[in-house]
Amino acid sequence: MEKSVFQYKVAPKQVDFTRRLSVSSTFDIILGAAGDDAHSRGFGVDALAQNNYGWVLSRICFELDYLPQEYSEFTLYTWISDYNRLSSTRNFELVDAEGREFGRAVSQWCMLDFSTRMPADMNAMAKAHEGNMVEAPSPCERPRRLAALDGEPVLQHRVTYSDIDFNRHMNTMRYIDIIFDTMPIDMLEKLDKLRMDINFMREARYGDELSLLCEERDNMRLYEFRNAAGDVLCRASLEEK
Amino acid sequence: MEKSVFQYKVAPKQVDFTRRLSVSSTFDIILGAAGDDAHSRGFGVDALAQNNYGWVLSRICFELDYLPQEYSEFTLYTWISDYNRLSSTRNFELVDAEGREFGRAVSQWCMLDFSTRMPADMNAMAKAHEGNMVEAPSPCERPRRLAALDGEPVLQHRVTYSDIDFNRHMNTMRYIDIIFDTMPIDMLEKLDKLRMDINFMREARYGDELSLLCEERDNMRLYEFRNAAGDVLCRASLEEK
Repeated sequence: MEKSVFQYKVAPKQVDFTRRLSVSSTFDIILGAAGDDAHSRGFGVDALAQNNYGWVLSRICFELDYLPQEYSEFTLYTWISDYNRLSSTRNFELVDAEGREFGRAVSQWCMLDFSTRMPADMNAMAKAHEGNMVEAPSPCERPRRLAALDGEPVLQHRVTYSDIDFNRHMNTMRYIDIIFDTMPIDMLEKLDKLRMDINFMREARYGDELSLLCEERDNMRLYEFRNAAGDVLCRASLEEK
Repeated sequence: MEKSVFQYKVAPKQVDFTRRLSVSSTFDIILGAAGDDAHSRGFGVDALAQNNYGWVLSRICFELDYLPQEYSEFTLYTWISDYNRLSSTRNFELVDAEGREFGRAVSQWCMLDFSTRMPADMNAMAKAHEGNMVEAPSPCERPRRLAALDGEPVLQHRVTYSDIDFNRHMNTMRYIDIIFDTMPIDMLEKLDKLRMDINFMREARYGDELSLLCEERDNMRLYEFRNAAGDVLCRASLEEK
């Protein structure tokens, strides 16, 4: 098997006020490629839905050496390198028009049986991966397991109509948007080389009142989303390099 | 001249929890087609920017007979029918795979000289339109001029990083998102045939504290965005048919 290849051009609606691809658009492109590749190889959400199974993103990390300018073109390579009983590892490399690798990502996905909310059986996992693995290592350190925070709430957010997807869960991109909305604008202006790790633990649902906690530790910004019951929904870390 | 033609397929990220194209995605598609068509005909924002001119959307209306399902395909036709000293009229028709027209829109654009914040001179207007007009009438009643509201504030919103575009102004789609976020979820679930009119008066900038006022009158929902100084930024009306 070969890595799958996708071509992109940074569209005006994917850039932020610095006219560079925003981190949340990068994340959207990566997840879009994952979905399209799984679909074209016959194990996308549509195929799995027939058995009431689905892919759930549990962890992801991505590293960007710089944020590409509006209208610049790049190539994305994606492949599954391995899987175990509980999760599947999908990798990504982003290469610019000059042939330089400027971004990389590693994601871990669980296959869930939606009728029981439990992991799918081993047969289903094996079947989805048969003939779909590429023997190439992950392009960077795999997503880290993020520890609990001691930080203070910096934002409250009620999950609204425009936040939710077809499942009535908050869209994964919105976590990134909300995190970035709390950062000082001059930090966002000069943001460049970075690594982000995200752990998804539990879905945010329509109407949920979310708190976002933030803590700075070891040169990293750490974030944690909680719902009103105090459940941790998502943790993220941002490291500027 | 002929109408310009664009093809679309409703993508998973353009649908809402009802698995139908959301109104804000429809608006995004319409504005995207306007930008792409202006660009390919040589009078897009990129060409105008050389003279420090730009297009600014002043009014738009759109009518949808139904909201298309996820993965359904449709064709969009767009053309400029006329212009005067102050604005240019761009029209849209949306036709589904069965050949039924299910949507239409009319937009009015001003050409602004950004160095003076005043309307561009008549020469620039004439030049942009030369050879680019199509002799076909607007497909529905043109955007209405919306009157002031007596309504109460139903929402406060601070303009954040993820709301703004390259100009540091709130993205036009976000006005629609915020309006829809205030509607009851069961109204959004059964939303079907509708007409929306929007008047844009003044930009919302990064950090602005917006109030959204709402009033129901004559079977219509009327909305008005104001900034902290009390300036009216945008008015909208929604009519369910």
